[in-house]
Amino acid sequence: MLGRKLAARLAGEAELTLVDVADGADISEPGVAAEVVSARPDVIFHLAAVVSGEAEDDLEKGYRVNLDGMRLLLDAIRNAGDGYRPRVVFASSIAVFGPPVPEAIGDDLAPAPRTSYGTQKAMCELLLADYSRRGFLNGIAVRLPTICVRPGPPNRAASGFFSNIIREPLAGREAVLPVSEDVRHWFASPRAAVGFLVHAAESDVVGSLNMPGLSATVAEQIEALRRVAGDEAVALIRHEPDEAIARIVDGWPRRFDPRRALELGFRAESSFDEIIRVYLEDEQ
Amino acid sequence: MLGRKLAARLAGEAELTLVDVADGADISEPGVAAEVVSARPDVIFHLAAVVSGEAEDDLEKGYRVNLDGMRLLLDAIRNAGDGYRPRVVFASSIAVFGPPVPEAIGDDLAPAPRTSYGTQKAMCELLLADYSRRGFLNGIAVRLPTICVRPGPPNRAASGFFSNIIREPLAGREAVLPVSEDVRHWFASPRAAVGFLVHAAESDVVGSLNMPGLSATVAEQIEALRRVAGDEAVALIRHEPDEAIARIVDGWPRRFDPRRALELGFRAESSFDEIIRVYLEDEQ
Repeated sequence: MLGRKLAARLAGEAELTLVDVADGADISEPGVAAEVVSARPDVIFHLAAVVSGEAEDDLEKGYRVNLDGMRLLLDAIRNAGDGYRPRVVFASSIAVFGPPVPEAIGDDLAPAPRTSYGTQKAMCELLLADYSRRGFLNGIAVRLPTICVRPGPPNRAASGFFSNIIREPLAGREAVLPVSEDVRHWFASPRAAVGFLVHAAESDVVGSLNMPGLSATVAEQIEALRRVAGDEAVALIRHEPDEAIARIVDGWPRRFDPRRALELGFRAESSFDEIIRVYLEDEQ
Repeated sequence: MLGRKLAARLAGEAELTLVDVADGADISEPGVAAEVVSARPDVIFHLAAVVSGEAEDDLEKGYRVNLDGMRLLLDAIRNAGDGYRPRVVFASSIAVFGPPVPEAIGDDLAPAPRTSYGTQKAMCELLLADYSRRGFLNGIAVRLPTICVRPGPPNRAASGFFSNIIREPLAGREAVLPVSEDVRHWFASPRAAVGFLVHAAESDVVGSLNMPGLSATVAEQIEALRRVAGDEAVALIRHEPDEAIARIVDGWPRRFDPRRALELGFRAESSFDEIIRVYLEDEQ
């Protein structure tokens, strides 16, 4: 989804080569990474991933695609020779953090993932930093907030309900809310996320960065929905508490203090109303 | 070296199986990990590693032995079946931290290695934590201080001089000091390190822990040497400033605030005199 939006944003500005597992190109298979690198792109955006739910269900596939795929890509770059040293922008995630999280997460907090997905992202960040330090590439890992409102059908991420409770009512459909309304989380729109990736490509910063975002409770999400689409929309949210999901979400980051990224000019939305407006502008 | 001392410490207390790359058993080769695991040890100490200098010189060997070797070991445990769930004690290192380091490193500072060795250790820590969370094993990574006084001939670690300037003069031989005397670093004796590993095996803590140690300057090392072995010993230290080594050492941790480990009962030396005394007791 982000890859599609990123491609649309860059179309006309740059020559693009898209590699998508949905088209049968699996970066973890021999030769695919070398072929990607053979065109010697100046910038490589690496977004491909097995998402959190699937990486949890299928340990081997998660490590193969998310970790080995990254390593094959970076080794293909390393082996390209002739001084090739691209900018590599890696879409990491706030899933590298796990409980206990402080109220606001600072720039130097140690990753402590509690999913295999988050573990794989954190391992990839370390690899990217090492290969950058050794001079094979200039890598930056941007730790994306939960993307909201995510368009299209739900994927297998456990965070799906944060988008469902906005997207579905806006389309006149019911949505299930499995957690209580005082749950607080960290969001950015797909448009903001694409902005992070583009800004990261244009900067020369190396390392892993917590991205800016909006800290909002589910209640604040719902009130924003009410202001945009009225009580009828809000009435389509069905409260169905799910202890298992509530336990998972309980350990998630609620807020960041992303000073480094803000100083570097990364920008996200400043209200949930704005996040809904962006969704309506971009998707409808 | 630590493996040998650990084995000596445990001899008689437990049934031991030793696997050492020096005996031709390479954990990164197919089948070796499965054979280690086939005896279903209750506790597995994983110390094997390509050291920092060599991991820097030979990128592929470092990742193969230090990262892939760990993964093969953990996958062999995962695949053992029948509810096998050993305690795994992994010797990590303060090399997971890199510049800029704060004056005292707290328990939750994010790793930021600036060597491939430190990167591999940090990646292994994440993998160990994920496999623990998923219930395949109970893993603990102990981040060892720089081991001092290291017996025997120098290995390829850049930190070798911290030991050389004590060990060699004690034996009547010259030693080279490549940095200035105000360099501060974080030490524990081999005996303390073995104590950390044994205590880690006996505890049920899961995760990565900064170990206690002694923060001392080179000048404090030298004064301790003088108290133990006199001016003649100190006179054998030859000051030969090496800009390259000084730059590397400049980014190293100077001090930790290892509250979590102290609360859990891990203990190190409290003076450099004590570290030298331990060396004399254990090695002479």
